[in-house]
Amino acid sequence: MSPELAEIANGSVTSPRGFSAAAAPAGLKADGTPDVALLVSATSCATAGVFTKNAVRAAPVLYDVELLAERPGRIRAVAMNARVANACTGAPGLAAARAMAQAAEQAAGLPARTALVLSTGVIGVPLPLDQVAAGIRAAATHLSPDGGPDAARAIMTTDTRPKHCAVRFETPAGMITVGGIAKGAGMIHPNMATLLAVLTTDAAGEPAALQPLLRRVADRTFNAISVDGDTSTNDTVLLLAGGASGVDPAHDGALWRAFEDAVQHVARMLALAIVADGEGASKLVEIQVVGAVSEAAAREVGRAVARSTLVKTAIYGADPNWGRILAAAGAAGVTLAVDRLSLQVGADSEWLTLASGGATAHADVTRARALFQQKTIRLRIDLGLGRAEAVVWTCDLTPDYVRINADYTS
Amino acid sequence: MSPELAEIANGSVTSPRGFSAAAAPAGLKADGTPDVALLVSATSCATAGVFTKNAVRAAPVLYDVELLAERPGRIRAVAMNARVANACTGAPGLAAARAMAQAAEQAAGLPARTALVLSTGVIGVPLPLDQVAAGIRAAATHLSPDGGPDAARAIMTTDTRPKHCAVRFETPAGMITVGGIAKGAGMIHPNMATLLAVLTTDAAGEPAALQPLLRRVADRTFNAISVDGDTSTNDTVLLLAGGASGVDPAHDGALWRAFEDAVQHVARMLALAIVADGEGASKLVEIQVVGAVSEAAAREVGRAVARSTLVKTAIYGADPNWGRILAAAGAAGVTLAVDRLSLQVGADSEWLTLASGGATAHADVTRARALFQQKTIRLRIDLGLGRAEAVVWTCDLTPDYVRINADYTS
Repeated sequence: MSPELAEIANGSVTSPRGFSAAAAPAGLKADGTPDVALLVSATSCATAGVFTKNAVRAAPVLYDVELLAERPGRIRAVAMNARVANACTGAPGLAAARAMAQAAEQAAGLPARTALVLSTGVIGVPLPLDQVAAGIRAAATHLSPDGGPDAARAIMTTDTRPKHCAVRFETPAGMITVGGIAKGAGMIHPNMATLLAVLTTDAAGEPAALQPLLRRVADRTFNAISVDGDTSTNDTVLLLAGGASGVDPAHDGALWRAFEDAVQHVARMLALAIVADGEGASKLVEIQVVGAVSEAAAREVGRAVARSTLVKTAIYGADPNWGRILAAAGAAGVTLAVDRLSLQVGADSEWLTLASGGATAHADVTRARALFQQKTIRLRIDLGLGRAEAVVWTCDLTPDYVRINADYTS
Repeated sequence: MSPELAEIANGSVTSPRGFSAAAAPAGLKADGTPDVALLVSATSCATAGVFTKNAVRAAPVLYDVELLAERPGRIRAVAMNARVANACTGAPGLAAARAMAQAAEQAAGLPARTALVLSTGVIGVPLPLDQVAAGIRAAATHLSPDGGPDAARAIMTTDTRPKHCAVRFETPAGMITVGGIAKGAGMIHPNMATLLAVLTTDAAGEPAALQPLLRRVADRTFNAISVDGDTSTNDTVLLLAGGASGVDPAHDGALWRAFEDAVQHVARMLALAIVADGEGASKLVEIQVVGAVSEAAAREVGRAVARSTLVKTAIYGADPNWGRILAAAGAAGVTLAVDRLSLQVGADSEWLTLASGGATAHADVTRARALFQQKTIRLRIDLGLGRAEAVVWTCDLTPDYVRINADYTS
């Protein structure tokens, strides 16, 4: 049995021992609020990263991928900025990402090649390096073990709320804490759904063990929230393990599973906070896909439903149009047996069957409509083919979403 | 050089010799207008079909696929209905599709297993067979060589205009005519973008030669208009070659290419009519992708841009947000060299370069915004990798689209 996870009030990336952070205004946000953040670890961190699969990768992604390939066990800092993505900026953009990392290393008194960088904002605009570097130097002067929430606030773009949390759990060898911050702003962020997340822990670890763990966690959390099939130029999830707890969970199978649970819990909380803060979103949709031959197949079906604009508009309109949901599932590119498909909609412990055997279950329409009017809609699709399952989250598509996204750069 | 194609005024599926059609009201449309159509050929037709790739296939698709596998050279009729898709209807749905075909064969005095069926409308509702069969019998009483446009009107769902056209061209052996009807209703039809098209010709042909021709034509026309990555349960494109012209173009390479050009011309006109009639659409977008290593790769990139809701909302808002367009191209799953990417926006013969070498081209923003305010937006993406190209069409995403789709079944 997993040890119990305790959520930490106002938790963040600085909840695990050994981490400090701060934010500062660099003049990128028009209202003068902090737009640059710096996270520093007292020790070298074993670090894992999951990056966008987009063929157009932003300069900070290129920089981080190269640095992590070279020195995955020596990371000490993460420098972040909002408003400018430093994407589609060519060779000067890559030089700017490198200079941003150097500014962080110098400001925090760290060795060269120990800082990662994260940027989010408009694509195609050069990074204002002097401003960003000055902001990083200002942040370095007031690094604090309470600075995580400020960092979360600094990287917000159209997010309406900062996203940060942390959990801890006891082990026979001592307490392990896992924390995180993220930004996303909903169903689809104006900058191509850019999702940034930094997870930290005071557990000890090896990069080679942390990387597959982070991949699994990301697939079940950040990659399970809907975006529309597109991936951003800048999407990045990092996990830094500093080791200040003195506990290395890798040496005990049960402990390692508990550690993965803790990382997944933090990642899931951040991912759900991103969906709930969706642009123009009025409803949260949880799509459970069960009876699949593999977890990957289940997730593909869930993602196909989650990115269907027809499903999302029907949910906005509280229209229990179950045919659209099955048809969206059918377009996932996964082999299905239509006559085994069933669909339920639920609220709390009540489930109403809308379709079974791939055809109507003659559900009461009034009841179905009432369930689709909830703020949180739960759909359960049974493929009837196996025992694997996955959960995907999305939000509805509203006229407000179109309005928010119709004019962004200019 | 291809012979010149002449467009036929008010052309349709009944423009080629040997075809007749009629429509009739079966009581499916609430306003009592015709909702069932019957197309009949005086001769057995060599027939090709391209069907939805959705794993959830509607009963008429299952029926037609089976019949075409068995008797591709013996088709005499196509029976069609609007309002009810006969999808997600289980074994009774398949029996209903078969009965609908039988009703057409009996009403038109044709041999058994010579009629194909097409349905479009709400998913999950049983086909009202008695009404549909009565409608088919009524239509069979007034089949006419001028009936094609009536058939096009009968299969409209949220289409605001019927879609039909025809072309003809001279050959040394005589005139060949190609015609067609289609329904679509825009960017995404409420019933999962259901697209139905029937193409007819009085050329003679063999199913084995027509099938790859129709596949190529469909990829360049109906599969090159945006839908959102989803495919409908019912999407079907048929090509019937009756042979009444006495000309078989397969025996001459140049003639075969001219014939393919004619079929493609008709298919392209119908496809563009579908996009232009998009739900809530205010703009037509043509995406030219050049410099690709293959036509398929070019089309994938174009489709990725065409289905990006961020691109579509930016175009609705006349926002020249070129970074979103390159980022959407990057998400196509096609290998790209970012530093070779360029993007232009055009109107008539003027092209403005927005990005080159994967970075900004410092275009005049006022001019760019003016070009994005046109009713037809042309984008040209050069991948800089090869010589293949493709064109994809889409429309913008507007608040009206969301409103139209938020409530459909109930």
